[in-house]
Amino acid sequence: MKKLDTQSTDFQAELKALLAFETAQNLETERIVADICADVQKRGDAALIEYTNKFDQTNAKSIDDLILTQADLKSAFERIPNDVRTALQTAARRVESYHQRQKMESWSYTDEDGTLLGQQITPLDRVGIYVPGGKAAYPSSVIMNAMPAHVAGVKEIIMTVPTPKGERNDIVLAAAYVAGVTKVFTVGGAQAVAALAYGTETIPQVDKITGPGNAFVAAAKRRVFGVVGIDMVAGPSEILVIADGTTPPDWVAMDLFSQAEHDEIAQAILIGTSQAYLDEVEAAMNRLIETMPRRDIIEASLGNRGAMILAKDLDEACGIANYIAPEHLELSVENPQEWAKKIRHAGAIFMGCYTGESLGDYCAGPNHVLPTSRTARFSSPLGTYDFQKRSSLIQVSEHGAQKLGETASVLAHGESLTAHARAAEFRMK
Amino acid sequence: MKKLDTQSTDFQAELKALLAFETAQNLETERIVADICADVQKRGDAALIEYTNKFDQTNAKSIDDLILTQADLKSAFERIPNDVRTALQTAARRVESYHQRQKMESWSYTDEDGTLLGQQITPLDRVGIYVPGGKAAYPSSVIMNAMPAHVAGVKEIIMTVPTPKGERNDIVLAAAYVAGVTKVFTVGGAQAVAALAYGTETIPQVDKITGPGNAFVAAAKRRVFGVVGIDMVAGPSEILVIADGTTPPDWVAMDLFSQAEHDEIAQAILIGTSQAYLDEVEAAMNRLIETMPRRDIIEASLGNRGAMILAKDLDEACGIANYIAPEHLELSVENPQEWAKKIRHAGAIFMGCYTGESLGDYCAGPNHVLPTSRTARFSSPLGTYDFQKRSSLIQVSEHGAQKLGETASVLAHGESLTAHARAAEFRMK
Repeated sequence: MKKLDTQSTDFQAELKALLAFETAQNLETERIVADICADVQKRGDAALIEYTNKFDQTNAKSIDDLILTQADLKSAFERIPNDVRTALQTAARRVESYHQRQKMESWSYTDEDGTLLGQQITPLDRVGIYVPGGKAAYPSSVIMNAMPAHVAGVKEIIMTVPTPKGERNDIVLAAAYVAGVTKVFTVGGAQAVAALAYGTETIPQVDKITGPGNAFVAAAKRRVFGVVGIDMVAGPSEILVIADGTTPPDWVAMDLFSQAEHDEIAQAILIGTSQAYLDEVEAAMNRLIETMPRRDIIEASLGNRGAMILAKDLDEACGIANYIAPEHLELSVENPQEWAKKIRHAGAIFMGCYTGESLGDYCAGPNHVLPTSRTARFSSPLGTYDFQKRSSLIQVSEHGAQKLGETASVLAHGESLTAHARAAEFRMK
Repeated sequence: MKKLDTQSTDFQAELKALLAFETAQNLETERIVADICADVQKRGDAALIEYTNKFDQTNAKSIDDLILTQADLKSAFERIPNDVRTALQTAARRVESYHQRQKMESWSYTDEDGTLLGQQITPLDRVGIYVPGGKAAYPSSVIMNAMPAHVAGVKEIIMTVPTPKGERNDIVLAAAYVAGVTKVFTVGGAQAVAALAYGTETIPQVDKITGPGNAFVAAAKRRVFGVVGIDMVAGPSEILVIADGTTPPDWVAMDLFSQAEHDEIAQAILIGTSQAYLDEVEAAMNRLIETMPRRDIIEASLGNRGAMILAKDLDEACGIANYIAPEHLELSVENPQEWAKKIRHAGAIFMGCYTGESLGDYCAGPNHVLPTSRTARFSSPLGTYDFQKRSSLIQVSEHGAQKLGETASVLAHGESLTAHARAAEFRMK
């Protein structure tokens, strides 16, 4: 793990190098994805079946082989162990309860001229949830993507999940059942994104696509953005832990591991205010790493992109956090709520020693789909609001039309838009 | 203007053809834009000056020639006519007042285990507003883009506006002054977008870029999406008017013109419930077109993409509106608020005969940056919320950690993420 010291003259440059991550868009990938998207748009189900058989090594004869119904989801739910079933339900209930609070409501008011102004909130009609297959198949992601849509009032939630070599993940399907998914298609890759975006004979066109995926999925989402809505294009997962030394070093060590175990390019950074404490955490990591089944991934991740930073105080640490704009920020400090007020950019803020990130990943309630790679500077966790939208409401009164008409007319003439001006003037006495 | 009848067996196909608009991404444009973006990222100011001189036919010797300060904006404001100054201020004040109501506030609650959950709202630090130059330079767009950022609490609002052949538009600069823009750079095109996204020696890197532009600007915004946030990629402007016959035909005719005069690919559609009324509007259009300075554009637009649709009743008309998901929807009917409840997809809903679209374009209060090309199915008007973001807040209590830990541990083991499980288990007694 790299060691940085804020007192070093090279600190800013070292920090920048640490965070650097090339998300360059590959023109070759883009070309392949453009072809696949165009082909699925043109040939529909036939193209989708071909690509699926080719890329996922499946043997689908017709589109029916790629459809899972509510009954299929239910039987998966019934097959999984009892404790997993309960855990999925508990997580879903807590996520639902939190996301209820995010629901936007319509509002309006009437100004002094009797003109009504407001905003009408409606859910999206139909959304697509992309769920990766294979080793990165996370049931918790299904809950985190589908539940906000469900809470928003979306009527149809279509999920796609590839089944490489035909292997289905029962817990993923059970999670879809618990989270209110309407229908599942066992397709993936750019072809799944294209099918959701344009619709095929069988797969209905959706209004928005959310969920993580590989480089092809990301490129396809970027490509269809505009035809449908998309969530963010996610980068590798990251955590920044700020510790004042009051949290047991083992706990912090394991929190760093839990980020690092995701994959080799995940990033785990610890900022401490005392060298002694950083040393204690390091010792804990050296001891605990022996017990980790994903030791290789953890070591690669921490070696490549991990770091311990010695800061002079918590104020400085919060400043660094605002620069990093981390996906996950643990404020493992006393009086964390006071320090949270200094945080301007972070996907989620985990406060106090009991709030290990993994509790938030699964079941605390807030969403685990969070802005990565410094995008917390301008974006937010996935939420109920991502599945709702706003329509402006305007009802100008006769009296209001007189005053507004004057202003609109002057500005329209200033823009040489005569019809705009005349339309306003027609409503004036 | 095309004439459609919902009773015709071809109606659905005709409607689909009417709305079809090829927004195909051009690979050649994308390649040019990729090169420009990479070059500006690498060479900064030097590249920006070269591209600006080349594309805008300017003669900038150094970056200083491309900077406008607050003082420059103020003197533009002082140069423009009195009535325009007042109109800009009136519009800005109304837009500000409406957008104040959109401001999100932080919230939190404590669950039965003493665990705090919530959401912290913060403004973006710095945003870029792209304003087109030349004939499509609209001062009202400056207000509509900058004011929500200002209301959100964004500290720095950087505007770019190209000045082809060095020509500046005083009203645009005055609008920037009124709307609280911090600094203006007289650059445009993909090079301006790249400069805002990556930063140069002089232009500070922003967190989000909003505002309309040509195909190169759109491609550049799509390209830098992820490095910075962007608003939507806008298509041609459209209006759908639903009229029950109670609004003077001249008013409706002029509202259709005011959409059509934007450009040849703008779309204006009228749905009426009686042929007699549609005929009256057509007669009004034939009479009023003679008086329109932009007659050629209006005729091209209405000829290419305009339509009159005869529907059997208002219920059916609302159904068509939901399919079209129009940018602007005029409900020029009696009891418009009742009918508005049936609208699921629209950027803005203009209710009643006095609410001509142009009042909303300039000064009613709501934003005129609205989702186009059916994207109101999943997106919203530009708003204060686009310049704010959310961070999840979680502070798990010692008691809460016991219960949440159990659920997290089961699910983490189900995903083979042992460190996640152990991090949860460490917090359990």
